[in-house]
Amino acid sequence: MKETIGFIGTGNMGSPMAMRLLKAGYKLKVYNRTKSKLGTLIERGAEAVERPADAAEPGGIVITMLADDAALREVTFEADGLLKSLGPGNVHISMSTISPDTSREMAVKHHEVSADYLAATVSGRPEVAAEGKLGIYLSGEKAAKERVMAILHELGRNVANCGEDPGAANVVKLAANFMLFSAVEAFAEALAFAEKQKLDRTSVMNMLCDNLFDCPVYRNYGKLLAAQDYERPAFKLKLAFKDLKLAIQTSESAEAPMRLAESLHNRMLSLIATGKGDCDFSAIGRGAAEEAGLVHS
Amino acid sequence: MKETIGFIGTGNMGSPMAMRLLKAGYKLKVYNRTKSKLGTLIERGAEAVERPADAAEPGGIVITMLADDAALREVTFEADGLLKSLGPGNVHISMSTISPDTSREMAVKHHEVSADYLAATVSGRPEVAAEGKLGIYLSGEKAAKERVMAILHELGRNVANCGEDPGAANVVKLAANFMLFSAVEAFAEALAFAEKQKLDRTSVMNMLCDNLFDCPVYRNYGKLLAAQDYERPAFKLKLAFKDLKLAIQTSESAEAPMRLAESLHNRMLSLIATGKGDCDFSAIGRGAAEEAGLVHS
Amino acid sequence: MKETIGFIGTGNMGSPMAMRLLKAGYKLKVYNRTKSKLGTLIERGAEAVERPADAAEPGGIVITMLADDAALREVTFEADGLLKSLGPGNVHISMSTISPDTSREMAVKHHEVSADYLAATVSGRPEVAAEGKLGIYLSGEKAAKERVMAILHELGRNVANCGEDPGAANVVKLAANFMLFSAVEAFAEALAFAEKQKLDRTSVMNMLCDNLFDCPVYRNYGKLLAAQDYERPAFKLKLAFKDLKLAIQTSESAEAPMRLAESLHNRMLSLIATGKGDCDFSAIGRGAAEEAGLVHS
Amino acid sequence: MKETIGFIGTGNMGSPMAMRLLKAGYKLKVYNRTKSKLGTLIERGAEAVERPADAAEPGGIVITMLADDAALREVTFEADGLLKSLGPGNVHISMSTISPDTSREMAVKHHEVSADYLAATVSGRPEVAAEGKLGIYLSGEKAAKERVMAILHELGRNVANCGEDPGAANVVKLAANFMLFSAVEAFAEALAFAEKQKLDRTSVMNMLCDNLFDCPVYRNYGKLLAAQDYERPAFKLKLAFKDLKLAIQTSESAEAPMRLAESLHNRMLSLIATGKGDCDFSAIGRGAAEEAGLVHS
Repeated sequence: MKETIGFIGTGNMGSPMAMRLLKAGYKLKVYNRTKSKLGTLIERGAEAVERPADAAEPGGIVITMLADDAALREVTFEADGLLKSLGPGNVHISMSTISPDTSREMAVKHHEVSADYLAATVSGRPEVAAEGKLGIYLSGEKAAKERVMAILHELGRNVANCGEDPGAANVVKLAANFMLFSAVEAFAEALAFAEKQKLDRTSVMNMLCDNLFDCPVYRNYGKLLAAQDYERPAFKLKLAFKDLKLAIQTSESAEAPMRLAESLHNRMLSLIATGKGDCDFSAIGRGAAEEAGLVHS
Repeated sequence: MKETIGFIGTGNMGSPMAMRLLKAGYKLKVYNRTKSKLGTLIERGAEAVERPADAAEPGGIVITMLADDAALREVTFEADGLLKSLGPGNVHISMSTISPDTSREMAVKHHEVSADYLAATVSGRPEVAAEGKLGIYLSGEKAAKERVMAILHELGRNVANCGEDPGAANVVKLAANFMLFSAVEAFAEALAFAEKQKLDRTSVMNMLCDNLFDCPVYRNYGKLLAAQDYERPAFKLKLAFKDLKLAIQTSESAEAPMRLAESLHNRMLSLIATGKGDCDFSAIGRGAAEEAGLVHS
Repeated sequence: MKETIGFIGTGNMGSPMAMRLLKAGYKLKVYNRTKSKLGTLIERGAEAVERPADAAEPGGIVITMLADDAALREVTFEADGLLKSLGPGNVHISMSTISPDTSREMAVKHHEVSADYLAATVSGRPEVAAEGKLGIYLSGEKAAKERVMAILHELGRNVANCGEDPGAANVVKLAANFMLFSAVEAFAEALAFAEKQKLDRTSVMNMLCDNLFDCPVYRNYGKLLAAQDYERPAFKLKLAFKDLKLAIQTSESAEAPMRLAESLHNRMLSLIATGKGDCDFSAIGRGAAEEAGLVHS
Repeated sequence: MKETIGFIGTGNMGSPMAMRLLKAGYKLKVYNRTKSKLGTLIERGAEAVERPADAAEPGGIVITMLADDAALREVTFEADGLLKSLGPGNVHISMSTISPDTSREMAVKHHEVSADYLAATVSGRPEVAAEGKLGIYLSGEKAAKERVMAILHELGRNVANCGEDPGAANVVKLAANFMLFSAVEAFAEALAFAEKQKLDRTSVMNMLCDNLFDCPVYRNYGKLLAAQDYERPAFKLKLAFKDLKLAIQTSESAEAPMRLAESLHNRMLSLIATGKGDCDFSAIGRGAAEEAGLVHS
């Protein structure tokens, strides 16, 4: 009989993650600002709670998977917030893409009430979450990390230990996203270049993946880019832009300039300004194509 | 008993490629502007010739592996140049990284004398060439491509057919290099960012490769970047810059803007201006680190 | 006998502006977080007050000249803040470089207590402020603008009417700073380029000013750039970076990409990361020179 | 009675310059590849010659005003080229926008036949040329410069002495154009930014010119940018791009990176790729507006 876990934030990513835990035999107390998103989870046996504070059992584990720093702050610090009910033995696993400095501040506030805060950030799209094959970056206190490891292994195929600094997993996640966006931008430009030289986008994409870039990131996004297929968003451009801004803001406080991030800022903001914010972020490829004078239906 | 092949250009890359053909049982007539570079090949049985024109047997195959467009033009068109001795049945396999337009012009001139011109560009470092495991992009006339396939399979593990346009293999090669440089730049920035947040470069590098970027390009360059080890150049920065300029120049004639290429132009030129042109091109990582105020011994 | 004006924020720029008003015959009630900065003004007859709220006379005018959005919010909204004592007839002239959205929000809050809020942003260095020769951009309600015009004409040679939108003057100020930074960056690159071609920086600077760029911005910064003289900061790089970030943040909410701003972001952040944040912002010129391999003592 | 001058290249700029010299009383021997462009000059008394070599009188002065390095090389070095008829006492004033290295090579070749070569580059549009108010940058041997000064003063209001290095005037010209393009790009972005914040383009443009940017460059281009009026090209975008590429190419050989030039490269190439190469170069403003989602009729 497995323990009860609090789960706060059941959106695009949180929902399949919570479902995965239910299937693995955990009991869940779930909270979401918009209650209607809890339906399927309740059908599968999760218990809905009214306030974030109610998600935590004494000494238990709570997972948060929220949109941004502000949402996490609200859920944690508001009057009925999670921190109200945390104390010795509680562990808060924060899986949202947020800034490292927010994680560090969170850790301090949790320690003040003798609870633990871990950052456990994830790479992967919703369908990957549903299969329990996310990549997970984990940081925070050692004992707390060991305690939650079995749970994280239900969610991810690979849990990378980023050390004791509670913000470290957030740093790695921002770096990973930045590299992902850069790879898609470069691939998009390369395909526009090849098309303007009258080569076939799909052939070139395949050749580049076969020879040098033989990994899922390039293969998956390469297909979308070759086909100029951006209308089924798994990771919306406007959310990717939010993550990019978080990386840039962190690069400011870290005093570590990232020139490709600045270039991507222009690309994404232009796409948003011209109405493509709700496309998949790989619509970067449309930007590169239009800039080259290519028009696709 | 295998046929005799002409081989012009026995530098860093050409030398191990020619050696590979000798080991596979081909006879070679070799030419190099600087004769001293022919030593090892002659010891292994290659015949040195005095003029590019002498490298070609009637109806035979000649490979060129030269530094740039200008070197190929000279070797091909000069008074004693290769084109002088080419005629029906000859195939010139041009393996240098040159502009697609030069390949297209070459093809026309070769057809005027009833010879064939193929572009067969390669991805891979000298040690990869020595093992016959290059990635090869091949373009040009169908019959000629079929004729040379066995020879190319001695050099590469993978021969990608880019179609009939003689410039196509050059387009793909320029695109591949551009994507490689972009990936290294992004990785370099990510590691400087992580280090400024007090994370360990090697750990972060490994985590990123394990989760999202699990392919040799990221693993190999990731090691160099994590260790800031740029002093054993397999692909010199100043030669990478030459290739980048070729990509930009082709993007101009193709009217296909490549904003990351323009950003890389600044990075590489700055490194050259500050004395790092003879480092490996992954010294991009030193640029990113210095810009972030990181100083490594 | 002129009226009494509240003046909050007597730093680098605020101090000479307040002094200018004293000399013009206005009475001042001055407030500054750090009291020690009030000394000279008190000697010249200004009255120091203990709380921001005390700076406003019933129905009177209050000027704020603060570091950033956060400082203005605090001074305005805190328990003893300015807003507490404002009511019908009061006009708050906000002269800080802040975001247009903060101005718009401020205007709403002021109208709720029947007071007026004007944005009156300024171009010019401290010595220009002392001479009453600032350039001023003014926006907000018509009647209020007319009421304060005489005061603003003590501070500036030129008061430009930006219309009724309270944020408009902030937009123009951010645009002006952005154009200033861009002009300095371009000039810096041009001089590094010329020096690397063995031309004399000062001669080239003068020729460019004489022919095409004959206005004070280019002449003044051209002198600093030619001499590589950045150690007497009139506008510190780290403050300029704050303004640049404000412009970028506003460009995000306006969905108006500014690619040169993104490029400047890299330049300034690199200079800050390498220890030049307290130089004058024209140290951009040092960045361009070092990038070109030029070392100046 | 004034001397006879050879004048080669009577295009957009060359034509009003030659006309200006005729009006000042000089006799002209004119040459143009396309003869039909000589009509008006011949009506005004110029003598048309058949070959570049015929433009030079023994010991006389010849002016060239051509499209690019290649055109100057052809006119100078071809079989019937200018250099054929030059000898002691001849001065060739080269007024085209070309690379400094071409000027340096030209100077060497001219000295071999005891003739002088001067670079005298110009700032200004055709109507400015017609009024004799160009800005002129002059470099080369001192005695030759003195000899041609009276002639240059017919063409320009201001002749700046760039020193003895024959390429120096070309360096300054490339720097001036680069700064001009940068200023227009920055202004264009600022106006798009302001418009997206609902400010009036023309008002903002005027305020910025009145306060900080009070010089003809900003006033003239500001008007075009505010009105989005790019259809009457005085300096075509595709020619501006040619000059920008020359600056970048020179920055490569000088090892002086120019990041704004690289950014402008993307802007201009995108505009050309989308069909705006024949607009005035200030169509940069259309690029900035479209990127921000602004559509103007």
